[in-house]
Amino acid sequence: GVNPDLANERQTASFSVEKLTAWLDGGAEQTRLRRAVVEAIERDPVFSRENQYFQSQNERYEAAVRKAVHLQKKMHEMGWSQDGPESKYIYRAVAGDIAFLLHRIFMRSISVLGSDEQIAKWIPPASQYQLIGSYAQTELGHGTYLQGLETTAVFDVTTQEFVLNTPKISAMKWWPGDMGRSATHTVVFAQLYVHGKCYGIHPFIVQIRSLQDHSLCPGIIAGDIGPKMNFEHIDNGYLMLQNVRVPRENMLNKFCEVQPDGTYVRRGSQKINYFTMTSVRISLISSEAVTPLMKACTIAIRYSAVRRQSKLKPGEQEAKILDYQTQQEKLLPQLAAAYAFHFIDDYLQEMFDRGYREIQRKNFDTLPELHALSSGFKATVTQYCTSGVEICLRACGGHGYSLLSGLPSLYTKIIASCIYEGENTILLLQTARFLVKSFMAASTGQSVPPSVTYLAAVKPRKCPAKNKLDFLSPDIYTEAYQHMAVRLISSTAVKLQDLIQSGVKKHDAWNRCTVQLAQAAKAHCHYITVKNFAETVEKLESKAGIQKIMKHLCDLFALHGIFSNAGVFMHDGYISGAQMDMVTASYLDLLAIVRKDAVPLVDAFDFTDKSLNSALGCYDGQVYQRLYEWARKSPTNKQISPAYEKYLKPLLHNTLSKL
Amino acid sequence: GVNPDLANERQTASFSVEKLTAWLDGGAEQTRLRRAVVEAIERDPVFSRENQYFQSQNERYEAAVRKAVHLQKKMHEMGWSQDGPESKYIYRAVAGDIAFLLHRIFMRSISVLGSDEQIAKWIPPASQYQLIGSYAQTELGHGTYLQGLETTAVFDVTTQEFVLNTPKISAMKWWPGDMGRSATHTVVFAQLYVHGKCYGIHPFIVQIRSLQDHSLCPGIIAGDIGPKMNFEHIDNGYLMLQNVRVPRENMLNKFCEVQPDGTYVRRGSQKINYFTMTSVRISLISSEAVTPLMKACTIAIRYSAVRRQSKLKPGEQEAKILDYQTQQEKLLPQLAAAYAFHFIDDYLQEMFDRGYREIQRKNFDTLPELHALSSGFKATVTQYCTSGVEICLRACGGHGYSLLSGLPSLYTKIIASCIYEGENTILLLQTARFLVKSFMAASTGQSVPPSVTYLAAVKPRKCPAKNKLDFLSPDIYTEAYQHMAVRLISSTAVKLQDLIQSGVKKHDAWNRCTVQLAQAAKAHCHYITVKNFAETVEKLESKAGIQKIMKHLCDLFALHGIFSNAGVFMHDGYISGAQMDMVTASYLDLLAIVRKDAVPLVDAFDFTDKSLNSALGCYDGQVYQRLYEWARKSPTNKQISPAYEKYLKPLLHNTLSKL
Repeated sequence: GVNPDLANERQTASFSVEKLTAWLDGGAEQTRLRRAVVEAIERDPVFSRENQYFQSQNERYEAAVRKAVHLQKKMHEMGWSQDGPESKYIYRAVAGDIAFLLHRIFMRSISVLGSDEQIAKWIPPASQYQLIGSYAQTELGHGTYLQGLETTAVFDVTTQEFVLNTPKISAMKWWPGDMGRSATHTVVFAQLYVHGKCYGIHPFIVQIRSLQDHSLCPGIIAGDIGPKMNFEHIDNGYLMLQNVRVPRENMLNKFCEVQPDGTYVRRGSQKINYFTMTSVRISLISSEAVTPLMKACTIAIRYSAVRRQSKLKPGEQEAKILDYQTQQEKLLPQLAAAYAFHFIDDYLQEMFDRGYREIQRKNFDTLPELHALSSGFKATVTQYCTSGVEICLRACGGHGYSLLSGLPSLYTKIIASCIYEGENTILLLQTARFLVKSFMAASTGQSVPPSVTYLAAVKPRKCPAKNKLDFLSPDIYTEAYQHMAVRLISSTAVKLQDLIQSGVKKHDAWNRCTVQLAQAAKAHCHYITVKNFAETVEKLESKAGIQKIMKHLCDLFALHGIFSNAGVFMHDGYISGAQMDMVTASYLDLLAIVRKDAVPLVDAFDFTDKSLNSALGCYDGQVYQRLYEWARKSPTNKQISPAYEKYLKPLLHNTLSKL
Repeated sequence: GVNPDLANERQTASFSVEKLTAWLDGGAEQTRLRRAVVEAIERDPVFSRENQYFQSQNERYEAAVRKAVHLQKKMHEMGWSQDGPESKYIYRAVAGDIAFLLHRIFMRSISVLGSDEQIAKWIPPASQYQLIGSYAQTELGHGTYLQGLETTAVFDVTTQEFVLNTPKISAMKWWPGDMGRSATHTVVFAQLYVHGKCYGIHPFIVQIRSLQDHSLCPGIIAGDIGPKMNFEHIDNGYLMLQNVRVPRENMLNKFCEVQPDGTYVRRGSQKINYFTMTSVRISLISSEAVTPLMKACTIAIRYSAVRRQSKLKPGEQEAKILDYQTQQEKLLPQLAAAYAFHFIDDYLQEMFDRGYREIQRKNFDTLPELHALSSGFKATVTQYCTSGVEICLRACGGHGYSLLSGLPSLYTKIIASCIYEGENTILLLQTARFLVKSFMAASTGQSVPPSVTYLAAVKPRKCPAKNKLDFLSPDIYTEAYQHMAVRLISSTAVKLQDLIQSGVKKHDAWNRCTVQLAQAAKAHCHYITVKNFAETVEKLESKAGIQKIMKHLCDLFALHGIFSNAGVFMHDGYISGAQMDMVTASYLDLLAIVRKDAVPLVDAFDFTDKSLNSALGCYDGQVYQRLYEWARKSPTNKQISPAYEKYLKPLLHNTLSKL
């Protein structure tokens, strides 16, 4: 049965959990579809994650391959297609714990960068897994700075082949997923040389393992890069190329081609490439950052409602730890953030779809804004969610530290999202570059993209709030965020200009402003998030029951941000010390209000027990029983350790006395 | 050879690394001793950590037991004693990766809580490992709140025994180290019942495994709690007691005793117990928090001096990532913090030694201050260092995420220090209670302990700094920290009083202030840290070469704190917006200054390559070569995965085509 402490929390919900779930999913029909997919996957024992926390890297890899292969069968059985409405739910259901994700990137890169002939040649066999692909871009010595890649591809006009080489150790490909042990082919990015001239980085399809017996092809040295903080199931690999020859047709040549005589031809616009990066960054926000934070909140909040520790009032029963203000202050802002970023994901998706329609009409005007926003939000959301998951883990004390809580693996996985697909600091600086440019344009009256028009509206005012209730007005706090973002962006832009005008070289001036530029980019994203949350709540008017609690969450997210970043709001006196006390008072009041609906608010995320895979987070709240049951299954309890015969017994027996 | 990029960094050091090392060690003689111990341990292959990142939990446990047993032999060979000057260096040399640490706690608890007879009976055999002890306090349902423990010990007057029971699942002992698979005995904390009356928590010595064959004793259910985020080498265990009888003499009875007829006698002062907790908290600061941060800084800074990525100036060579302002802003404040907390550790040790001398004279007056400071610093230092290690990990990008960097295991281990020996939030609130009390006393003119006399000096002034150079004056910034701490403590004390006076119940009022109380406690510790750093630098006058760089680090630590917590300094206008710009300017200037000595400053920590166990952090900076060499040794490269024959081959062959 359900722990009464958890059952009670559900009886007092101020809203319908089912309705909120449906709204979050984008409609009851989506909820139905999602549940059907999740159920089909979870009912199948091949997809079980039951003993995952006990498995070695080798075992995890084997399981991931088994699942990936089985998934093809399952999809066929169920009539699901790769691009069907089920696909995003499949990924959610397997919790990303599956092989061949890079095979999909392999196919996408051919579709985007390859000619029609290349697509016709490679995509059909890849779709049918007649080969397994990977994507070899990152090297030991270069990640973010693609121009610095050191792998070479020299065109041999006599044989009409490219000769690929890894000229030094730092040029080894390092990290590509599915490459360490699975892939038969990969797209290799290399510096193209024709007749001694370097044409920069280009993509080449290279076979690395035999299709017959999987042995490494001649000239190929490849293997697994070993243990990581997580992703044990993925065979991230290394690859060294020694005079590996591929035919001229293996260079992906939609945008550029080497002709038989060595003539290099560039064609079409490569702008669309940016679009691919943008699309990847936006798509990972939901699955790799927001979903893990939602799971962590579910686990930590349910646990905090059944964990009782110490007394709040003398003589009474021990209190639920969720009733302590400090515990609320840890968890509830993370819960509000999970909602805030779910809505930002919707915002970015819409913007992306609009942009995509424009691009199909050959209008690339929206690209800079889309690129800036996707970079900035990838960085801010992954960073926020990572620290949110860590807070959830620590808020569960010792039991949170057990792998069986599910929290450590959520953390060790989400932290990678701060690094891959563009390191966060680099991404923030790309956003900052766009913001500075937009600010300069706006301040000279030029038109700027919609998300940054606010930069033109310079209003050196004071916050009009007179009491703590005023800070529950979205207009008040949204204005405060806007003011703060404008101030940080404009002051940094001015500092940059001043440095340059005082004779400092442009690149040096930029470097000297980067700490503040990154801060400004974060401020911009924070502002957009608050504004979008407030607008989302406003649009909810028809669903009153949900609107009220969403308004509380929006207020909480906004005020937590002001409370935690007080300095940037007070710097120019926009918010005074007295007003900051009002913010604090309203913020602390909100914790007590949101606390009442905390459990229903995580229930609405609708994660199954299997998908949480947590002894602390199950729906029934039977945490102690489950911890004990799961611990007994641990391999550390399956056998007497050889340590007893080898070391303990001699130690104890050598001097055994009659105690 | 040494990577030239790292060699260059060392040639331009502004100070003597060897002199700084000696000073950090407390003299050249200590350095010599430390190096001798470390060398002896590292030369011995039994203590090798070479393949640690590839080992399973079972293998790690076995290795830890092997090392612990071998260490006894080693110590005997080397003539090292358990309490000798070598002991702290031994722990450093084995990097904590050893079994039987709880055996020492077992012995300490008997020494502190046991009578002379009990000490005479148990300590000699324990010292000779004729038994292996553990310490069973924490239960599934209770950690921090000891009064809530549910294990029972009922006195049976007829047999003169205590009958121990685990009455429900939440009462199971859970987490005790060395208990899952090793210990033969443990100290069990249980609610004592005599003639139906509960006398609260008392400690009992209980045998859990046979000394003969290590089988579980009758009525004992025990095992390992399974996988954790780290500490795979420790067999944290569970323990269930079913009518386990121990003789009356097994209750540790220095402070209280049950006489044969059931009369309960309490004697002596238990205040000394607090002293034990205090001593544990202080001792873990250096070994479990500061040392890991120093290691993480060493790894990340050395790596950042050899990693080149992108160009700072067009047309030039790619830049070292340490030359980017954003990278400096990540790493150098952590470096400054590592030094700051090293000095705080010295400060606390001295204070502890003074207190200990007083207590030996039966003067317990210093206990409240010592308890408050050790709690507050345990919380603030572990929290700061944990986030510092995480920053170092992320600053190394993808390679930091590989276990081979050494950073993930530093992180997953240090994060536990925020939870054990008192959860950090609880500890901060204990400090806050002391601060509020001291503030009330000080404001009514009563005398208060030395570390809080500053609370009496209420000076509602403005910061006198006029330009950015003024903020390099320790007087200026120490005053700012003091002002900020006083403001946070006094305003929260006033809020608390106001709530109570307005009719809110005391415990409720306290709960409503806890977010701010925790903040106030942190502010106090931050202030003491800055003040102590400044005083340490001042005392260095004779060692000019070192003093200059230490002054820069002190300034950096202090200004980073103001920059990152701007709101609390600006709240009442003590620091204005214009002054905050000066702080920012000085802070950013300092990054460029400290950067020049960054590598020598980590070299001075004097960690051997073996102790860092990091492919990125070695002294020679050959990071790519080492990553490759280490990865090849991974078990994932030792065999063809069964996944090929089972899944990949059928997948590829079923539809094999002629590509």
